[in-house]
Order: sequence, then structure tokens, then C-alpha cells
Amino acid sequence: MRFDIISVLPGLLESPFTHSILQRAQKKGIAEIYVHNLRDYSSNKHKSIDDYPYGGGSGMVMMIEPFAACIEKLQSERTYDEIIFMSPDGETLNQAIANQLSTQQNIIILCGHYKGIDQRVRDLYVTREISIGDYVLSGGELPAAVLVDAIVRLIPGVLSDETSALSDSFQGELLDAPVYTRPADWKGHKVPDILLSGNTPEIEKWRFEQALQRTKTRRPDLLE
Amino acid sequence: MRFDIISVLPGLLESPFTHSILQRAQKKGIAEIYVHNLRDYSSNKHKSIDDYPYGGGSGMVMMIEPFAACIEKLQSERTYDEIIFMSPDGETLNQAIANQLSTQQNIIILCGHYKGIDQRVRDLYVTREISIGDYVLSGGELPAAVLVDAIVRLIPGVLSDETSALSDSFQGELLDAPVYTRPADWKGHKVPDILLSGNTPEIEKWRFEQALQRTKTRRPDLLE
Repeated sequence: MRFDIISVLPGLLESPFTHSILQRAQKKGIAEIYVHNLRDYSSNKHKSIDDYPYGGGSGMVMMIEPFAACIEKLQSERTYDEIIFMSPDGETLNQAIANQLSTQQNIIILCGHYKGIDQRVRDLYVTREISIGDYVLSGGELPAAVLVDAIVRLIPGVLSDETSALSDSFQGELLDAPVYTRPADWKGHKVPDILLSGNTPEIEKWRFEQALQRTKTRRPDLLE
Repeated sequence: MRFDIISVLPGLLESPFTHSILQRAQKKGIAEIYVHNLRDYSSNKHKSIDDYPYGGGSGMVMMIEPFAACIEKLQSERTYDEIIFMSPDGETLNQAIANQLSTQQNIIILCGHYKGIDQRVRDLYVTREISIGDYVLSGGELPAAVLVDAIVRLIPGVLSDETSALSDSFQGELLDAPVYTRPADWKGHKVPDILLSGNTPEIEKWRFEQALQRTKTRRPDLLE
């Protein structure tokens, strides 16, 4: 699966894509992640990519021309399944969306900044707008990294233990049960006896009950 | 405001904290962001920080000891308002939570990994659990970066134009109106006439109507 991310701050995305699972997925050849510097597509001699908003108001607006040039160059090289704009106005990312996107081949992700991007980019190019949550961030770079991480870990072969992804929170619509590891007694704070019992059916039952209880308490909406 | 982030992958967070608004906030002395390598607090000679889960099952669990050692060292140096664990089980981050946290002085953020962290870390140290959304990620590092970004941009003096933060999506409970910048005509795709009119009251009215319409269409839940 290939991701082309268009950003005015490509350096911001360097370390998230060169560590952990995203690094491994690229080394294994399962994911390709390219970050394109929007300024390279500015036809302006100052390499500017933003300008004042029509109608006045605070903040700068990212211009259509550099986005159009970069998107059209990429589209001339291959076909894209989606051109996603990370935006607080978009549909809110959830596991179902991540699952669905993990079956795609080529995705472009646009990172906005400043006051936003010219609406014509959204009208003419963007096929999908995704928000990672109801809060405001400095730009679309961290949301893009979050989206890529959520998707890539679902691609078969990326996680070393495939059952791990399937037993995650949200895949089964319950939050996870509490987990414990050594020491069994830490300064008097002990691991629940059941987990030391070796009685697998009872442990599974306990975990289900704990997961259900936690979900009821914290996220009753997931059970509706 | 000071953030101490405890992570097993500190390198993953390098570039997000050295670019854009987070970089500027640190240069201005408004925010201090420290990333601590959890492995430095392992008492184990192999610097391991995880172990198998009690009761069996896939995935590794992060041990209590390194977290306890790092948190207690930090607490011996200053008082913390919150010790936040980034977790899909937590309360879902929204703008109200970001606003509230932006008034705090010192925050510790714990990044989980693998199958999770020993429940006793959560029971004994964590004061608040926050999720950035209903999807599964490789670890708590990107969520920590998202949380810090959402908070820092709200601290007075961080954004060059303070009205920008106040007019963002979610602060006013409406999504933003479309924005446009030059050129006014891009390959026949024109900026709405109203924005070129110079009639500020009418422009404000149009923007409000557009924002209301977009919110009604995309996020009717925000209007309830």
C-alpha cells in the first residue's frame, strides 16, 4: 500500500515514519510512505503556498495551485483510490474507516495548515475528508501520521502477531480487560489471583467480564 | 507549561516537537517539552521494560517498575497537576478538555505500547486517561503529540494571532465556513462573488450561514 502525503512541513513527519511499526512495514515492503513538500510545487518565485483570505479575516489560506500541481503530478504516475483531506470538518475516524482504508492500494493525504485550504481544492480534488477527533491542531501532519498508523498496522504481515490486531480495543466493540505482568507482588500491590491460576477458561471468563464492566462504566455508547 | 512524556520510543517524537507551533512555543519559553526514555528507568540489566502477560495471551505488557521509577523521580523534582495515560479506554479528547488542560502547569504523559501497561501503573499513578479517538494505534506517542499540540496552541502568546485560536472550529461549536484565496478565477472555478464584494457585514452573514449549513449537513450532533 502506498501513501503520498502532501505537507508544507515535511520535516515534522520524519520521525513518526522512521520508527516502530511504520518503519518495519516499509522495510518489509508492505507500505510505502512518501512525504511531498508542498513548496516544491509553488510556481511563485518566493515558493509561497498561502495568501490572505478573500473577504478578510485572520489567518492565511493555502492556495489551490501548489496542491493542484502536486496532486496532478502524482495522478499522472498512478491511480489513487482516495484523496483524503485531514480536516476537523471531516467524518470522524473510527476503526471501521481504518479497516476499510487498509484494503486500498494508493492514497493521497493532504495536510492543511493556517486558517485552512482554498475550498476549491476540496471541491475539485478531495474524495474524502477525515477528522481524527473534535479538537483543533496546528496542522494536518499529526492527523495524517495517526491515520497512516491506524491503517498500516491492519495490513496483513505488518504486526508480528496477527492475533494482536484482532484482539485490540474497538475491533470487538469492547474495551480491553486489565493486563498485568511481573512482578506478581509489587510493594504489596498484587496481580489478581485468577491470572495466576493457570485456569484458562476461568481467565477468559474473567477477562470478558472485566472488559464488559470497563466498557459499561467508561463507554456505554459502545454497547448500544 | 511543562510536559514530561515517558516513552519507550522517544525518537519517534523528535520531529513533531521541533517544528511549527510546538517549536515556537518552546523557543518563546512558553512550553517546555521533555521526552524521557522509559528504558533508562529499567533496573533490569537488559534494559527490558516489558514482559509476558499473566494469564497468557498474545502481546507483551509494559512493567510497572520502570514507569514507577521515572514518575517518582519527576515527582521528587516538582508537583504535577495530572499524570495522563494515553489509552483507547480513556475519555475522548475534545476541545473542552484541551482548554482545561491548557490552564495547568506540569503534566506527565505516559505512552503505552504493545498489549498495554500493567494495570497497577494506572491504579497507582495515573490521574486521567485520555483517548484521541475510537481507533487503535501502535502506541501512545502520536496521541501524546496530538494532545500536546492541542493544548500548547491554546496557551496565550503561542499563536501569533490570538483571534485565530478563538475562531477555530469547535471553539464556537460550528464548523468553519469555506475559505478562499487567490486567484479569484482558477481555470474557471471562481471564488464566490460575496467574498469579493468588500461588504463586511454581508460577508460575515454569508460565513455564518455557510458554517451553519456545513455543520447541519456534516455534524448535526454539534448543534444539539
